[in-house]
Amino acid sequence: MHFDCVAQFTKMLRNLDGWIEKGLAHAKAKSFDPSVLMTARLAPDQYNFIRQVQAACDAAKFAGSRLTGRDAPAFADTETTADEIRARIANTVAFLDGLTAADFEGAAERVVALPFIPGKGLAGRHYLAELAMPNFFFHVTTAYAILRHNGVDLGKIDYIGGLSLRDA
Amino acid sequence: MHFDCVAQFTKMLRNLDGWIEKGLAHAKAKSFDPSVLMTARLAPDQYNFIRQVQAACDAAKFAGSRLTGRDAPAFADTETTADEIRARIANTVAFLDGLTAADFEGAAERVVALPFIPGKGLAGRHYLAELAMPNFFFHVTTAYAILRHNGVDLGKIDYIGGLSLRDA
Repeated sequence: MHFDCVAQFTKMLRNLDGWIEKGLAHAKAKSFDPSVLMTARLAPDQYNFIRQVQAACDAAKFAGSRLTGRDAPAFADTETTADEIRARIANTVAFLDGLTAADFEGAAERVVALPFIPGKGLAGRHYLAELAMPNFFFHVTTAYAILRHNGVDLGKIDYIGGLSLRDA
Repeated sequence: MHFDCVAQFTKMLRNLDGWIEKGLAHAKAKSFDPSVLMTARLAPDQYNFIRQVQAACDAAKFAGSRLTGRDAPAFADTETTADEIRARIANTVAFLDGLTAADFEGAAERVVALPFIPGKGLAGRHYLAELAMPNFFFHVTTAYAILRHNGVDLGKIDYIGGLSLRDA
């Protein structure tokens, strides 16, 4: 289940990469600089698009790393262009794709320390359900909302992506 | 784990109820009709706030119902006021609070039929990870973004809520 959830992060990050592609096409069609989208935000004191994507990548990366004990790649948070932020997404996906179901064995009950609350932590299952997933989806959805708000033609299928369908 | 995830839905719905309360206080402080917030949206062809909350409630309700086989309450989608949509949240939370970990036994592998794709379904674990959770977080986060965009003073702690902390 933990593996499923972290695998879902990679799928959503790939979807997010597709939204950026649609954003770039929209900027081209309307003849505006794509940096307008990259720096757009929904409220003056909320992260802009690039920072939302950085935060989504970090939520996914830290979940994969903290639940498995595997080292995650470090990023300098210096991205300013669509190409750079797409590279961040690709590097995050590559890290997560390297994790296996076996890496998550015992993760549900192992305690994950929280660097921002010294001396405290969460059982892996609570870390994933209460912190990593809500945070991850917060940032991908806000990134999506910024693009939608700025006229990029995205719909629910772009958001959800493919499904592991079977006969029912 | 399935139980954890569905329990997280109830926590987020309670958080969402708190955001509405902050929205009402903001409307009062700024002397505008709260229906402005209830009908606000981020793009002309995206759901407004009330509809986002309805959809969040439905994603949570259907997850609880389809994973356990327990009947969920029906809602008429007629809410137009903050009081009415808060009642919808409360009724959804009450349904989910009535589910137990035992109700979710075997849910991971049981196939959930998808009414919108006749003859097809998803294993419970895929249904939760690929459809129910992304959908749920999409609608709560977009509801949050609509309020933030309209000046309601919300922050990450309002979004995340309490954590099941333990010593680490």
